Amino acid sequence: MAKIRLGFLASGRGSNLQAVIDQIQQGLLDAEITCVISDVENAGALVRARDENIPAFTISGGAAKTKTEPDIERRIVECLEEHQVELVCLAGYMRIVKEALLKAFPLRIINIHPALLPSFPGLNVQKKAMNYGVKFSGCTVHFVDEGTDTGPIIIQAAVPVKDDDTEETLSIRILNEEHRIYSEAIRLIANKKIHIQGRRVLTS
Amino acid sequence: MAKIRLGFLASGRGSNLQAVIDQIQQGLLDAEITCVISDVENAGALVRARDENIPAFTISGGAAKTKTEPDIERRIVECLEEHQVELVCLAGYMRIVKEALLKAFPLRIINIHPALLPSFPGLNVQKKAMNYGVKFSGCTVHFVDEGTDTGPIIIQAAVPVKDDDTEETLSIRILNEEHRIYSEAIRLIANKKIHIQGRRVLTS
Repeated sequence: MAKIRLGFLASGRGSNLQAVIDQIQQGLLDAEITCVISDVENAGALVRARDENIPAFTISGGAAKTKTEPDIERRIVECLEEHQVELVCLAGYMRIVKEALLKAFPLRIINIHPALLPSFPGLNVQKKAMNYGVKFSGCTVHFVDEGTDTGPIIIQAAVPVKDDDTEETLSIRILNEEHRIYSEAIRLIANKKIHIQGRRVLTS
Repeated sequence: MAKIRLGFLASGRGSNLQAVIDQIQQGLLDAEITCVISDVENAGALVRARDENIPAFTISGGAAKTKTEPDIERRIVECLEEHQVELVCLAGYMRIVKEALLKAFPLRIINIHPALLPSFPGLNVQKKAMNYGVKFSGCTVHFVDEGTDTGPIIIQAAVPVKDDDTEETLSIRILNEEHRIYSEAIRLIANKKIHIQGRRVLTS
């Protein structure tokens, strides 16, 4: 079976990208990262990619901060298609994916979100979870649709929120689980182990 | 230390009431249930109460199905006060608590909800969780405020949602945790172990 070809979109330091790189190098995930694209010049994710000789590109997202203009998104699609990407992995990508990407990669874009969706979609969610006072939070890998963190859920992990937690300690606890479940979700998709019923993602 | 005096409001079979009765009888919870009130004649909760010689009352909730008219709610308050209730426990009580009760028992009304709030407030939430496709659900004990399932969270428990779950099997898995955490929340309050910071409920 050919390795699944992954393309990453990331805006930040890229720790989830690194976790997937590590899993591949350890022989635990049969995948190839064919390109990493960032809207942020010199983002950590790009540095990590270049360190691993993975083609890395900056495609500036345009004026708006949380979405991408259609012509720019089409350039992203072109880049992904040039690298024959089969599965697009968002990893700390801070812009909402719009029509051009969604149409080019239907049910082939996944995202990892640091909360137990549908609780706490959007930004700064570890802080929101702390302030709300939940006793469990976690992380979610889901297919990307036109909403914000609303697509069908592939895997979740739950972690306790402790009385003495700060936003930082909770974020670290969640991040450890993110690193585990993102590769697990990619593995399930690569091995064609999942199917969708309604909006439930089932493992066969 | 005197036993904390509990009053239950329930509309259904009263399995959470029974779990608290069991904990008290096993010497695991230092509390006394002084009355059980239901808006539904012959509700299972009333039958269980009478079996244990706990004063049990039907106070019909009035025309609306999901809320209680103010004069009726005042009758409930009177009944609770007559029985010197210190903590009001909602257990499958299908009406929204309004001003008369909230004012009479500020931060002294708790509820148990079969989902990991703030996900899935309201009714039929096990089914909603199944249909949404979450991989974890659970239950929440929270203080009751003027919203629907929005008050500060005392305890939560998380349970996995499995691929072969039905609404029924998931409900049973959640119910087992409900029976555990409701008594635990009452124990924390009885022992004055909690304090509220913002909307976070912390255990001291």
